[in-house]
Amino acid sequence: MVQEDSSGRQELEGIFHPRSIAVVGVSLDEAGWGQRYLFSLMQFGYRGNLFPVGRQGGEIAGLKFYESLLDIPAPVDYVICCLPAPFTPRLVADCVSKGVKAVQFFTSGFSETGDDDGRMLEQTLLDTARSGRVRLIGPNCLGIYYPAYGLTILNTVPRLARSGKVGFLFQSGGNSQELIEIGTSRGIYFSKGVSYGNACDLNESDFLEYLAQDDDTEVIGLYIEGVKQGERFFKALSGVARVKPTIILKGGRTVAGSQAAASHTGSLSGAISVWRAVCRQTGAILVNDLDEMMDLMIAFSYLKPMRGRRAGIIGISGGRSVQSADSCESYGFSVPPFSPETRRKLLELTPREGSSIRNPVDSYLMSWDPVLFSRALRLLGGYGGVDFLVVDISLIVSVLNSKRSDSMEKQVEAIGDFRKICSKPLMVVLSSEGVAGMMELGAELQQKLISAGIPVYPSMKRAACALDRFVSYHAESR
Amino acid sequence: MVQEDSSGRQELEGIFHPRSIAVVGVSLDEAGWGQRYLFSLMQFGYRGNLFPVGRQGGEIAGLKFYESLLDIPAPVDYVICCLPAPFTPRLVADCVSKGVKAVQFFTSGFSETGDDDGRMLEQTLLDTARSGRVRLIGPNCLGIYYPAYGLTILNTVPRLARSGKVGFLFQSGGNSQELIEIGTSRGIYFSKGVSYGNACDLNESDFLEYLAQDDDTEVIGLYIEGVKQGERFFKALSGVARVKPTIILKGGRTVAGSQAAASHTGSLSGAISVWRAVCRQTGAILVNDLDEMMDLMIAFSYLKPMRGRRAGIIGISGGRSVQSADSCESYGFSVPPFSPETRRKLLELTPREGSSIRNPVDSYLMSWDPVLFSRALRLLGGYGGVDFLVVDISLIVSVLNSKRSDSMEKQVEAIGDFRKICSKPLMVVLSSEGVAGMMELGAELQQKLISAGIPVYPSMKRAACALDRFVSYHAESR
Repeated sequence: MVQEDSSGRQELEGIFHPRSIAVVGVSLDEAGWGQRYLFSLMQFGYRGNLFPVGRQGGEIAGLKFYESLLDIPAPVDYVICCLPAPFTPRLVADCVSKGVKAVQFFTSGFSETGDDDGRMLEQTLLDTARSGRVRLIGPNCLGIYYPAYGLTILNTVPRLARSGKVGFLFQSGGNSQELIEIGTSRGIYFSKGVSYGNACDLNESDFLEYLAQDDDTEVIGLYIEGVKQGERFFKALSGVARVKPTIILKGGRTVAGSQAAASHTGSLSGAISVWRAVCRQTGAILVNDLDEMMDLMIAFSYLKPMRGRRAGIIGISGGRSVQSADSCESYGFSVPPFSPETRRKLLELTPREGSSIRNPVDSYLMSWDPVLFSRALRLLGGYGGVDFLVVDISLIVSVLNSKRSDSMEKQVEAIGDFRKICSKPLMVVLSSEGVAGMMELGAELQQKLISAGIPVYPSMKRAACALDRFVSYHAESR
Repeated sequence: MVQEDSSGRQELEGIFHPRSIAVVGVSLDEAGWGQRYLFSLMQFGYRGNLFPVGRQGGEIAGLKFYESLLDIPAPVDYVICCLPAPFTPRLVADCVSKGVKAVQFFTSGFSETGDDDGRMLEQTLLDTARSGRVRLIGPNCLGIYYPAYGLTILNTVPRLARSGKVGFLFQSGGNSQELIEIGTSRGIYFSKGVSYGNACDLNESDFLEYLAQDDDTEVIGLYIEGVKQGERFFKALSGVARVKPTIILKGGRTVAGSQAAASHTGSLSGAISVWRAVCRQTGAILVNDLDEMMDLMIAFSYLKPMRGRRAGIIGISGGRSVQSADSCESYGFSVPPFSPETRRKLLELTPREGSSIRNPVDSYLMSWDPVLFSRALRLLGGYGGVDFLVVDISLIVSVLNSKRSDSMEKQVEAIGDFRKICSKPLMVVLSSEGVAGMMELGAELQQKLISAGIPVYPSMKRAACALDRFVSYHAESR
């Protein structure tokens, strides 16, 4: 069902701004999905009216239980359905009677099962909805995430959540949870997103057209197993991808993956070669996994457009610097030696022994002494021979060898201060993964850097991979 | 200086088992390198005699200070030098007089500086050493790591250290520290290792020949920037790599990296194409970074030789399972659908709604219910259609949606119990990176799995990449 553009937009705008939500299938079982949806919305600060619908009567968290949607004595804009599949057709009929705008189905057991019963049940929902003006999201999905409006998907109430400019359309619910939780920890803040599952009614094209027009959304991430309306999707993607960077993770790129996709969301995956061609033509960016997507979302969130490929690297460990230079060059960057004059000035800041001042700069001394470190940063910030700067922190080497217990905090503060005056793109490589006793420190330093507006990557390889695509995007859209 | 084989081995054996060590250049400055070396050895449980050499007189940690090596009234087998470079020739002359077997130089400022003075000073050390029978390690290195004997490199006293079967030869000191700290956290345990820096005397060939003969060492990792004796190294590698899996990380693979290597250890890097050919001919395994090396060390430490490429995957999130299947197939594995009978049996354990039982299996229910989960594991453990099993844990999806707070612990216990009776290779994918509030839990679960003898990888991509090389190694050495 192709929407006329402005009416479709208006309709989605209404769906994303419900004045009231009924959660259907709530019980007093605190592990039950319905109760969890209800509490997630309350914790996340949804300010509209909330109506729990369930059989037990009485109250939950100060809200009166209604036995049926039709018993609610007020308008209901939006319904979150946690009922078992057999009860869903009746609910959709009630939604039609009640004048609900949209129903989101956590419920699964439809076309993704691969059997006729499931497919027919899904068709029944759709037919019933279309007998009125009710739109369906899912089934087999987690629904809408819209932090500025207090909407969240099941159980996902990230501590660090705040609104930002990244939108997402994810066919998978679990992946949506991972994106939101890992993403917010890494400094990705979201405008609006949807986990949309089987997409029997509203599908990726509806949502993509909406995000394309949405002023809050400047970057878009899509996790797609299969597309419902190929031509419409291609058109929407062509319209948006060169204006708002659009990152696509295709689930079911291989035989094994596409079989898994069929039983996950009932999707028929297209060949990955087709997707490569689509991305080439539309300007969308194809990635291989969720980490790559988040790495790119960070680049587009924190860095200004850039096209230069000359890296300046400051590290503290020689072996690591060698590998960092290798990683950069593997992704098409150069790490050109600094000019003789710049090297001479660096040598005023660090002794020749145990240091390198060629590019990468590696110097233990600088990592301990925030004053020297700041001076080196400023020197390279003003150096015309590189286009961007990477500070490569090995937490292990730093912490083990440092002379002061707070030297890491001081170094990170110095980077934050430098960020304010640095006109070059600046990023940090920092990982504390897997090292007993250093993870909390790593997480804390990462948060400080992010708060100072600096993108942080867990390895130079991942930074270079993201930056390669970031630079290519801006070079192509020139 | 090519060693005759057995005498070289005997000499190295002596160097790795010093009955006494003098740390030269110790002061009362607790941030000083000398004092740190001394304390690292004491904390790590070195049981031989330790002699601090420094100017202040008196005692440190109950040990008498000696003003000169020659003042020590007992034999000294091994010297760790933390003096500034200009003082090193005199020290080597003293070592000759004292009958020291080997000196390890933390000191830098030699050939790696790229200037004539540094090169000449290094040559002076070598000439002086060869006027006696003193061998040199380094300069510009961190030296020997040998946990069973209480030897450790600077500041590296990993909490979880114990002896194991992995040997390493690393030209970089910082990388050695990262390998030891991250490695032990991930369950890699070491036999013997060396950070060997500029390799002016004892070089990669000496150490490789030694590890090749060393009964404690079954797997070898090398980080190499440049090779001193090409033919000898090739011969040593040819002799060992098909008997003991030998993993090589080449620093300076690119123009930028090789320039960095020149200023790091004064090494001339060979073209990476040469290294690819060397590895093909010798059976060594070339990797691109330290993470890939550790991933492979884990495979060789925990898995029995295997050649099959059919994966059975158990996960809990549909979207993630789709991507896991994609990752496996990208690295040359298949994820074949389970037989109808096996699927029927899986359906007895999990409802059709919200689950997939095709391969990957994904089921929320199983991740919460350790009894159902154990049954599913046992079912697949006995299934002949796959060669190995991967349990793919999304900590976020599990923790967010779980009905019980201890369900992750229970799931991990179930995997540990299953490991005891499972004849198929078994591994776990588990990551808690970057998620505020989940990292400690992730680290704890990882330790439990490792203690149960199960290799753990932070992503399916990294698991598949390591396993691909692991399977290829065994297929080729057949």
